Amino acid sequence: MSQGYPKDLITQTVTAVRPLDQAAMTAARDRQARMTKPAGSLGALEEISVRLAGLAGHCPPPLPEPAAVAVFAGDHGVHAQGVTPWPREVTAQMVRNFLAGGAVVNAFAAQARAEVVVVDVGVDAELEPVAGLLARKVARGTADFTAEPAMTRDQASAALQVGVEVARDLVAAGSRCLITGDMGIANTTASAALVCAFTGADAAMATGRGTGVDAATYARKVDAVCRGLARHRPDPADPVGVLSAVGGFEHAALAGFILGAAAMGVPVILDGLIAGAAALAACALAPDACGACVAGHRSMEPGHSITLEHLGLQPLIDLGLRLGEGTGALLALPLVQSAVRALHEVATFDAAGVTEKN
Amino acid sequence: MSQGYPKDLITQTVTAVRPLDQAAMTAARDRQARMTKPAGSLGALEEISVRLAGLAGHCPPPLPEPAAVAVFAGDHGVHAQGVTPWPREVTAQMVRNFLAGGAVVNAFAAQARAEVVVVDVGVDAELEPVAGLLARKVARGTADFTAEPAMTRDQASAALQVGVEVARDLVAAGSRCLITGDMGIANTTASAALVCAFTGADAAMATGRGTGVDAATYARKVDAVCRGLARHRPDPADPVGVLSAVGGFEHAALAGFILGAAAMGVPVILDGLIAGAAALAACALAPDACGACVAGHRSMEPGHSITLEHLGLQPLIDLGLRLGEGTGALLALPLVQSAVRALHEVATFDAAGVTEKN
Repeated sequence: MSQGYPKDLITQTVTAVRPLDQAAMTAARDRQARMTKPAGSLGALEEISVRLAGLAGHCPPPLPEPAAVAVFAGDHGVHAQGVTPWPREVTAQMVRNFLAGGAVVNAFAAQARAEVVVVDVGVDAELEPVAGLLARKVARGTADFTAEPAMTRDQASAALQVGVEVARDLVAAGSRCLITGDMGIANTTASAALVCAFTGADAAMATGRGTGVDAATYARKVDAVCRGLARHRPDPADPVGVLSAVGGFEHAALAGFILGAAAMGVPVILDGLIAGAAALAACALAPDACGACVAGHRSMEPGHSITLEHLGLQPLIDLGLRLGEGTGALLALPLVQSAVRALHEVATFDAAGVTEKN
Repeated sequence: MSQGYPKDLITQTVTAVRPLDQAAMTAARDRQARMTKPAGSLGALEEISVRLAGLAGHCPPPLPEPAAVAVFAGDHGVHAQGVTPWPREVTAQMVRNFLAGGAVVNAFAAQARAEVVVVDVGVDAELEPVAGLLARKVARGTADFTAEPAMTRDQASAALQVGVEVARDLVAAGSRCLITGDMGIANTTASAALVCAFTGADAAMATGRGTGVDAATYARKVDAVCRGLARHRPDPADPVGVLSAVGGFEHAALAGFILGAAAMGVPVILDGLIAGAAALAACALAPDACGACVAGHRSMEPGHSITLEHLGLQPLIDLGLRLGEGTGALLALPLVQSAVRALHEVATFDAAGVTEKN
């Protein structure tokens, strides 16, 4: 491989992803039924707590804190097709904004007491070294997938590996919940192409308005997705091939990040469309990785709902967000933490001396 | 008044509730449009931040922290009609559980860094004095509203006043966000009657399964609501009369709590059906009080959706919860805090040197 990354880290990681532990899930369901509340009254949060017990392999699972959001940033060659009104340089400008603490992801992370790390995996700019920035650039942006593959297979593998390593390093430093973030002007276009490739969805159905596009731009966006898919005919049975053909560096890195979390039994809260597209790739590589994924929110992007349905995930937040950066996932973090904390701390009927219903 | 409460505190509080400040709301909308994110990309959270600016009268509004949840507890005479499978003594048992820190409200409040106070406004038990318990009992439970008014007007006024005073004291002690909590076996029955009285909804549409009732119990519950409404014919233009006829002590106190928050310009996050029914009473007394209310979540109870529509509130969380205690509102607290924090901390395009879209 041109970048010198050992390919077998990805293979090792995929192999390390295990199914959820059914005994731990049964123990969690049993405890939920004995806690001082009507059975089932915590709704979707009960199932989250059960799933995290299965992921950890014991009940209760560890509290998912401290948490860290990794914002993977990259540029996109398909920007040349006029798919967005935002200039390409905004990717690097927003990365600097993240590092200065001035973006929404910073405010939401501060509120949720989550660490923010920014990973340059493919930004088309020279970024100054600064605290909080991980310089893991694979290349200065992808190629235009309407004309050629977005990445070589080696580049896609290198970006996957970056994601695995970032997950590993964050958990080694103490994080017990990982959160996906992303930045990349035009990355909803690449995401739509990935969603189509992995789910078989129609391009017009999977392509949305992104961060705000007019009708003409939207038509160019759908057309670019269609041409990319027609040119490469990506095979969903070859997830690295799909990522190489129409993905972004941040998608590949996020797929690795998700696989890394799953391999370590650590939950990963997915943000919106970009994370969802990456999760499709991760779960194509290791289907059991889906057990580690919590859908933080439902984005306004139509491709995201298609993705959630394909993965069988129910989002925790549904507030019409369409920002990215990890913001929707950060809002879901306290819900996940609350779900697990209840399993730890709530008394049972017996212990509290509360009479059960007749 | 039999309890010696000066009636004019309620009148003073109602009079002190002001409309939202339009200039502050305009300033908040303007700032949201200049923040480094696509316009509108924070969805419903942008409108929350705008509304809280209007409530505070300036932009940005104060961060809604620290927060406190007040759990108002009372018993219900309508329990005698067989409307719930839970024994009446569970109200007092759960109050003791709250005070021991063993309930879900405690776990969620700990996660959200919110203070918990429990207010005995009508529990049918002698509760031992203990830290965290406010002994403000008006009576040992309401009367059975299928046979007589649930409360006298003086009792309803006394409970309203308790709520105003609890809100006042929490804000005086530093709280900048109030959260409604409730406990009272059979209080979904009283809530359904209140929802019908204030919105004109049909009893069968507004009455739900509460914390888990079978078909026969459900039929008795709907019948009890119908008989209560038929007996008292409560007039929605007389909110204290409605509360007296079919409400609970915790409903009246919560209505006062909401009015108190609104009068002080402090946001109040509503939990589910019981808080919603109380908000109907509060907003009937002072329509502008609705501006202070944030709907924390959408309960599974059908009467709650009727209530939210009547109040024009969009819930922040919709996860199939049906527990009460304040749990759904506590889950929404970080979302409200994040919305306001973004208005404080996110850089503008100009300040961050980020190019706007073409």
